Amino acid sequence: MNQPIQDTFLDGSVNVHDVPADSPANDYPTPLDPLVPVDEPLRPSGAEQARTILAGASVGTLASLTADGSPWASVVQYAVMHDGTPVLSVSTLALHGRNLQADQRASLAVAAPVSEGRDPGDSGRVTVAGWVEEPEGEERERAEAAYYKAVPAAEIYNEFGDFNLWALRIERIRWVGGFGRMASAQPSAYAAAQPDPVADAASYAVRHMNEDHADALLAMARAFTGHTDAVAATALRADRYGLDLGVETPRGKTPARVNFLEPVVERDGLRKATVDLTKRAYEIAG
Amino acid sequence: MNQPIQDTFLDGSVNVHDVPADSPANDYPTPLDPLVPVDEPLRPSGAEQARTILAGASVGTLASLTADGSPWASVVQYAVMHDGTPVLSVSTLALHGRNLQADQRASLAVAAPVSEGRDPGDSGRVTVAGWVEEPEGEERERAEAAYYKAVPAAEIYNEFGDFNLWALRIERIRWVGGFGRMASAQPSAYAAAQPDPVADAASYAVRHMNEDHADALLAMARAFTGHTDAVAATALRADRYGLDLGVETPRGKTPARVNFLEPVVERDGLRKATVDLTKRAYEIAG
Repeated sequence: MNQPIQDTFLDGSVNVHDVPADSPANDYPTPLDPLVPVDEPLRPSGAEQARTILAGASVGTLASLTADGSPWASVVQYAVMHDGTPVLSVSTLALHGRNLQADQRASLAVAAPVSEGRDPGDSGRVTVAGWVEEPEGEERERAEAAYYKAVPAAEIYNEFGDFNLWALRIERIRWVGGFGRMASAQPSAYAAAQPDPVADAASYAVRHMNEDHADALLAMARAFTGHTDAVAATALRADRYGLDLGVETPRGKTPARVNFLEPVVERDGLRKATVDLTKRAYEIAG
Repeated sequence: MNQPIQDTFLDGSVNVHDVPADSPANDYPTPLDPLVPVDEPLRPSGAEQARTILAGASVGTLASLTADGSPWASVVQYAVMHDGTPVLSVSTLALHGRNLQADQRASLAVAAPVSEGRDPGDSGRVTVAGWVEEPEGEERERAEAAYYKAVPAAEIYNEFGDFNLWALRIERIRWVGGFGRMASAQPSAYAAAQPDPVADAASYAVRHMNEDHADALLAMARAFTGHTDAVAATALRADRYGLDLGVETPRGKTPARVNFLEPVVERDGLRKATVDLTKRAYEIAG
C-alpha cells in the first residue's frame, strides 16, 4: 500500500508526509487483481472515534491553567452527556478546581483501554478542548444525572457540596488511533456522532476470531482485500463498520481493511455482521 | 477517628477543613485503651507516592500550551530516569510536539492502576509540573536508554527521527491517594525518594490476605490499632511501611493503619513483613 501519511491538523491544514525510510510500511505488498472489486475502506470518522473513546471510560486527565498560566494535568472522573459534552465535578479545594474557577479554558484527554499484549502507542486516545461552564436548568439536571451514573461514589460523598459541576464546551477534537491513524473533528460532527455500539464487544470478538476462526479471516482477506494469495490473516481491530486485518502473503505482510456488508447499529450485532461477511467471503473465494 | 482533613497546597499553604457533615468519617469509632501503645502511623510520603506511581506506568497525560496559551491534554508514553525525571519523546508533527517547541512549560499526570472493583476516585494519581528541555551528553544517553526500555516500540519505529526527546524538569509535585489522602512534595524530596519496592506485589497481597488470612488481619487490628474489640478486619492497601485496614467493631467501622516491624526494602519482602507482623500480633493479642 505504501501511501504517504496524511495528517490533518486542528487549524484545517493538512500535512502529507512520506512514510519514513525505516517504516515497516515500505515493505507492505500491493494488492493483486481482486476477485471482486475492492470496496473503499469504510472507517469510523475522527468524530465517531472520539465519541467512542470518551463513552468507554470515566477516568481521564484534565489540563487546566495555574495562576501564572502554566499547564496543569490532573486525573479526573467524568461523565458524557447525550451530545458528547463531558461533565466534570471538581473540588473547589483542589488546585485544578481553583484553576477552573479562575480560567475556564480546559482540555480533557482519555485513553482507550489497551488490550493485553497490545502496544499502548498503537492504541486509541482522544483530546477534546474548549472551556468549562456551569450547566443550568434542565441541562444541569441532565449533567448531574449523567455524573452520578458514571461516578457512583459521587452520590455517596454528596460531591456537589464543595465541588463545582462543569460542562466542557468543546471547540477542538483530536483523535489518534495509533501509528499513522489520526484525525481531527469539527464540534458539530462530534456532537452528531454516535459512540460505536460494538466497542465493548470488539476486543473479545477479535480474540475469538483469531483463536477459533482463522479460516474465516483468511477467506475475508482473499475475497475482499485484493490479496488473493493470502496464506494467513489475523484480526487487529473490530468496529461498527468492519475489521482491520493483518494479512500474510508470499510477498510479505500488510494491514488491510474489510467492511461489513452493513454497518452494525445494535450492541449485539457484531457476531451476525462477522458471520454474514464470512459467508460472503466463502461464496467469492469458493 | 474523625480528625479534620489537612490539605497542604503546592504554595506551602495548609488548608485544614472539617470532615463534611455527611461524611462516613463522622461515624468512625474512636480507639479504646490499646493492648500496647499504638504507634504513630508510618505512611509513604507524597514524594514516595509520586515516585511509585510514575515508576508503575509508562502511559500518562501531558498538559502543554497551545499557541494562544490554552491548555492541551494529550496521552503520551514516558520513561522515568533514576532521579525521577520523566522522559518524553514527542513527534514534531503532532500538536503537543509543536506546543512544547514553542513553550516549554509542561505537566504530566499519571494514574495508578485501579484494582478490580475499586473506586477510581479512591485510587492514586500524581501530577508533576515544570518545564521540558532536551537532555544533553551523558544525560541524553541515559534518557534514550530509559525511554527505549519503557517504550520498546520507539526503537522499532526509530522514534527519535522526527521526534523531540524531552526531560521534564519538575518544580511541583502533587499526589492524591483517594478521599482525604493527598500531599504535595518538594522537588528535592521527590528526587531523593525511592519508588515502593512492593508496589507490584501489593494488590495480590491484599487480595490474598483478605481471602486466606482474615484471622491474621483481625489479630493485627486488635493488637495494633486500639480497636481491641474488633470483630473483623480487611486489608485495603499495602505498601513498604505497612497495611491500611478496614476494621469492624461492635461500635462501628473505621479505617486504621498498622506499621510493619521494619519497612520493606526488597521487592520480595512483603510476605515476610506480613508474617512477622502477624506473629507479633498473636503474641500481643494472646
